[in-house]
Amino acid sequence: MRHFASLDPLVAPRSIAVLGASQDPLRIGGRPIAYMLARGFSGPILPVNPNRDTVQGLRAYPTLADAPGEVDAAVIAVPGAAAEQAVADCIARGVKAAIMFTAGFAEVDEAGAAVQARFTAAAKAAGMRLLGPNSLGLFNARLGYYPIFSSSFENGWPNLGRIGIASQSGAYGTHLFAIARDRRLGTPVLVTTGNEADVTLGEAIGWLVEDPDTDVIVAYSEGVRDAPSFLAAIETARAARKPVAMIKVGRSALGARAAQSHTASIAGDDAVTDAVLRDAGVHRARNTEELLDIAEVAARRIYPVGNTLGVVTISGGAGVLISDAAEAVGLAMPPMPAEAQARLKALVPFCNPSNPVDCTAQAFNDMSVIGRFAGSMLGDGGYASAIAFFTQVGASRSIAPSLREQLDRTIAAFPDRLFVLSVTGPPETIRAWQDGGYLVFEDPTRAVNALAAMGRFGEAFCRLPAAPLPSLDEPALPATSPDEAGAKRLLAAIGIASPEEEVCTTADAAVAAAGRLGYPVVLKLVSPDVLHKSEIGGVKLGLADAGAVRSARDEIIAAAARHAPLARVTGVLVSPMLTGGVECVIGVARDPVFGPVAMVGLGGIFVEVMRDVALRLCPFGEADAEAMIRSLRGFPLLDGARGRPRMDVPALADALSRLSRFAAAAGPRLAGVEVNPIMVLPKGRGAIALDAVITLEEHDATRS
Amino acid sequence: MRHFASLDPLVAPRSIAVLGASQDPLRIGGRPIAYMLARGFSGPILPVNPNRDTVQGLRAYPTLADAPGEVDAAVIAVPGAAAEQAVADCIARGVKAAIMFTAGFAEVDEAGAAVQARFTAAAKAAGMRLLGPNSLGLFNARLGYYPIFSSSFENGWPNLGRIGIASQSGAYGTHLFAIARDRRLGTPVLVTTGNEADVTLGEAIGWLVEDPDTDVIVAYSEGVRDAPSFLAAIETARAARKPVAMIKVGRSALGARAAQSHTASIAGDDAVTDAVLRDAGVHRARNTEELLDIAEVAARRIYPVGNTLGVVTISGGAGVLISDAAEAVGLAMPPMPAEAQARLKALVPFCNPSNPVDCTAQAFNDMSVIGRFAGSMLGDGGYASAIAFFTQVGASRSIAPSLREQLDRTIAAFPDRLFVLSVTGPPETIRAWQDGGYLVFEDPTRAVNALAAMGRFGEAFCRLPAAPLPSLDEPALPATSPDEAGAKRLLAAIGIASPEEEVCTTADAAVAAAGRLGYPVVLKLVSPDVLHKSEIGGVKLGLADAGAVRSARDEIIAAAARHAPLARVTGVLVSPMLTGGVECVIGVARDPVFGPVAMVGLGGIFVEVMRDVALRLCPFGEADAEAMIRSLRGFPLLDGARGRPRMDVPALADALSRLSRFAAAAGPRLAGVEVNPIMVLPKGRGAIALDAVITLEEHDATRS
Repeated sequence: MRHFASLDPLVAPRSIAVLGASQDPLRIGGRPIAYMLARGFSGPILPVNPNRDTVQGLRAYPTLADAPGEVDAAVIAVPGAAAEQAVADCIARGVKAAIMFTAGFAEVDEAGAAVQARFTAAAKAAGMRLLGPNSLGLFNARLGYYPIFSSSFENGWPNLGRIGIASQSGAYGTHLFAIARDRRLGTPVLVTTGNEADVTLGEAIGWLVEDPDTDVIVAYSEGVRDAPSFLAAIETARAARKPVAMIKVGRSALGARAAQSHTASIAGDDAVTDAVLRDAGVHRARNTEELLDIAEVAARRIYPVGNTLGVVTISGGAGVLISDAAEAVGLAMPPMPAEAQARLKALVPFCNPSNPVDCTAQAFNDMSVIGRFAGSMLGDGGYASAIAFFTQVGASRSIAPSLREQLDRTIAAFPDRLFVLSVTGPPETIRAWQDGGYLVFEDPTRAVNALAAMGRFGEAFCRLPAAPLPSLDEPALPATSPDEAGAKRLLAAIGIASPEEEVCTTADAAVAAAGRLGYPVVLKLVSPDVLHKSEIGGVKLGLADAGAVRSARDEIIAAAARHAPLARVTGVLVSPMLTGGVECVIGVARDPVFGPVAMVGLGGIFVEVMRDVALRLCPFGEADAEAMIRSLRGFPLLDGARGRPRMDVPALADALSRLSRFAAAAGPRLAGVEVNPIMVLPKGRGAIALDAVITLEEHDATRS
Repeated sequence: MRHFASLDPLVAPRSIAVLGASQDPLRIGGRPIAYMLARGFSGPILPVNPNRDTVQGLRAYPTLADAPGEVDAAVIAVPGAAAEQAVADCIARGVKAAIMFTAGFAEVDEAGAAVQARFTAAAKAAGMRLLGPNSLGLFNARLGYYPIFSSSFENGWPNLGRIGIASQSGAYGTHLFAIARDRRLGTPVLVTTGNEADVTLGEAIGWLVEDPDTDVIVAYSEGVRDAPSFLAAIETARAARKPVAMIKVGRSALGARAAQSHTASIAGDDAVTDAVLRDAGVHRARNTEELLDIAEVAARRIYPVGNTLGVVTISGGAGVLISDAAEAVGLAMPPMPAEAQARLKALVPFCNPSNPVDCTAQAFNDMSVIGRFAGSMLGDGGYASAIAFFTQVGASRSIAPSLREQLDRTIAAFPDRLFVLSVTGPPETIRAWQDGGYLVFEDPTRAVNALAAMGRFGEAFCRLPAAPLPSLDEPALPATSPDEAGAKRLLAAIGIASPEEEVCTTADAAVAAAGRLGYPVVLKLVSPDVLHKSEIGGVKLGLADAGAVRSARDEIIAAAARHAPLARVTGVLVSPMLTGGVECVIGVARDPVFGPVAMVGLGGIFVEVMRDVALRLCPFGEADAEAMIRSLRGFPLLDGARGRPRMDVPALADALSRLSRFAAAAGPRLAGVEVNPIMVLPKGRGAIALDAVITLEEHDATRS
């Protein structure tokens, strides 16, 4: 079943009208017509212009109502003041998809946003899809379909091929297309979404994923606006084994500020987007070069699980450089089998046959040696990915032809491998290699990065769809944010343990409780109005006897009266003092785009100073929770580093997973949870929530 | 005064002989002659070949002795067995520099290393410089001088220009040259050093630095072999304001292994090389692309101190991407002045005039707007570096010419700025921009990286030469490694404080000492044979009274007897228990290449788990020491993070600087120092060495 079929009339219509059609092929309302005439759009092109009988040689119509036949799609290239009426005209005419070039709406001011909201609502009510406003448009070169006003075709039309581009930004989308074209990549479809009043970037990606003629999707985003369509698109891509590579700008504080001032988008937290992309198997590229490197290699449709890299080189130095790059991106380079190494050593005595396999310049004395080295690397070494570094030798008139002959035979014998040739030379030489079916990268470190991404795609594609998570008994949320004891009761209800503890209203009760729980104990202020107890002296640790409990209780009550005279004081919480574990933090925050996101980190300075935390969209299971924990830089502290005991990581993972399921089930009233610290005890002894804050939106009758 | 003039006959000779000259222009002994004939080397070319009267049309000589006139340089392209005699012949003939292509020496086995050592010693004794063995050779295109057997000239000769290349690896050196040539960079001189039996990479860099016709040096290294010449070269470069950019491979564990198996080089510790390069202002590039990006921009000879970046763009998205990249490399992008913003906003109402300055596609309606935006950015904004992002518009036949006109005027008005144009298009269009004097980068993020490097060069160039460091009273090193008390006495002698403490041999003496020092106290085993006292129970903390001291002393003595029955036990060390500070570690280790290197880190997990340490070659002053401390990720813990007291960072810096001066003065017998922990107390209260290990080589009469 297709999920994104409603975009068919937008991306692949049978007929198109142009409102605001211009005779001038360089004007915004003229370019689409000129392009479609030049590229032979197969269906009717219907210019709408009240002042002309013909436009660029086509019969023109005074109004859209006058145009004949079914109108699948319509370009709206009219001034801002006429845009709303144009949408109404399209709806009246039964247009299925409108492409609005017109700008000056939500990206400009509140008044513009109001107009945009009105015509978007009308379109949605009528079932007409709307691209934009403030969109540069799109193209589908397979159909000669160019409802777009970019000037980027002056230097060439798109190449056919199997890479699709979806971009929020028109300028950046066509920048991507132009560079891809000049690199000879085939990108026949580009969709730029602009303000995304209706059609979202996620839907554009989703349409490309479901297109049987597209294998690879590259995307550009300034911040996801609509989480459901985006998440559905990238999950559909994963299930269909179609790689998505994406630039999402606004990674830095500086960039986020620039993104916010540049668009009307809700940027959300970049770290959350980053986690979402990683968990969905989407490759996040840092720049255009990397994005297109990945697309070029991905178009080979080889996504090895358990990816390894073999390197054959005529420069030992290049081999080392490639090894450095491989380790930096986690691409394994296991050595060649010993017998194979011995065979190669017999062939070229001074060679280094491990991996990188350095055949040295000696090999050129007998070119068949190169073939045998490359063949042994793929055959004996069994690497899924390979780089052959021959630098300018690949363009040498005296050597290249026999090199080509040797390598042709090798790659023909191993069609299931990713084989990259790293050579440098004049463009025509590089083209000749490419025309022979070679992936060519001048800089081998860029190839390493792209090859590593293919392995990550493979791992993501072979992941089974997440099994349904065990459900939690959904606890009823109270009307207002609970105090610590109430928060811990909520956690207990979802299976996250706290120390045995008692709320006591008098000193005598506290002493009696301490006796029952066992010394030493901890006393803490209980008040729904005081979140940061320790800062006002509301926490006393390591109390060894009844006297200490009594005076601690008095001090806490006095401190509360002094620092928070208006706070309601429920009493003090008495609990046993736990030691010998590692303090961690788990929590949930609500992202404005993606909803509840869980975090985990080691306690104190690790979160506060080292910013060592892992994030994931809620809900998720224990395996994912454990993977988050293991990704922390400080994980060795939980794992027995330097003679420490190993801590109960499964218990922490269980608590984190439970918290994520709770947050997903609790709905939007749950603003945040922070369990800080959660004490992770040595292996087999569990993880205990020592403090907890749960923040709720006040109960709102209109929502419930 | 020139330091590297002894390489003149090697890099710029007046005459050259070729031993092992070949008639075949494709053979190793034929290529240099063919190249020099083709490029018109100005001096005599003297082929030496006992079997021919002429070689490639030149008069040949049966032996070197028969060749007429002065012979500045000689290529040795003979078989391995004849190499040693060839060196002797060169020496006898008064040759000033020999270039040995011949391989099979130290890079192969011990026997080869022995032969190499013999002929190198002979050359040195005679004052003849020797490049190689196992060198691909060098070229100096200004003189038509090509003593090199690379095949890389088949696709073109070097461009003249002001970038020099020095490379240990011949294959990588010519790879760099070929890519530089194809990028139209001018690299007239390349030196590849091979085994570096005599001439080192540092000397090759140094010669280029002192060459008045070279402005920028790019280098490739697999591991520095000779620290003094390398350090002298990069300091000479800094003082001469000539940027050095360098690839040093072996960054990763994988890469270091590959480097070791590939060459005979002593790789040394990559982290040390990294610190050396950074402190000298050398840019360490990750790959060829980055290396040449830097060289291309550096050739403009603009190295701004206090570098800032202004961006003018027609794509808001590209602006955000550039902002992300700038923040990642620490390049500041301050906003435009408010009045300038107002003026630009008046010009283009929908523009975003902050920085990035997004002039939007609107600007193309009146091209003079582009000029005014770019001019305002450089003039009003005053940015030292600028990127103008025009993507494919820069290659648009309809728009590019007037864009060019506008920008020509702008850059002519600001010749002191680094101005990068980011456009994409066919090669001939890009060439036209370059011929007009523009730096062109298709991917603006690569430009950001290169521009940031120019600022770092500027900062390094304006640093004053280090003032002479205050000298320390050089302490006499004992004959063997001292115990803890002895180590602390050595530290005290150089001004690093320890707690007041006493070594006691009896329990009574320990109690008496504790009384004098004040409770609580710490007791530690004193033994020259036990380095890791705490692991055998040799440390007892927080002893509150005489009874505790007595039993702790007995337990320590018993533990020593049990775990280290053969250890000499001097007694126990009694010291007051210090609290309230932050534990750090300072130390010195001896790098096989660079000698003593100092390190600093926060104590415990920060060093052990987070690997958060800073390194620097010894000696250095307090300012450099403080910069090291401030570079730690965990520095906020010393600097009052989250309400903690601020610690005495100047005291720690003082101790670190003193330790570095001590290590530099102590000479090679000092194998290592570890002060772990050094307790850094709150501001004004100092830094106290709580434990110290000093490791000495046994006194060797032959060295002293």
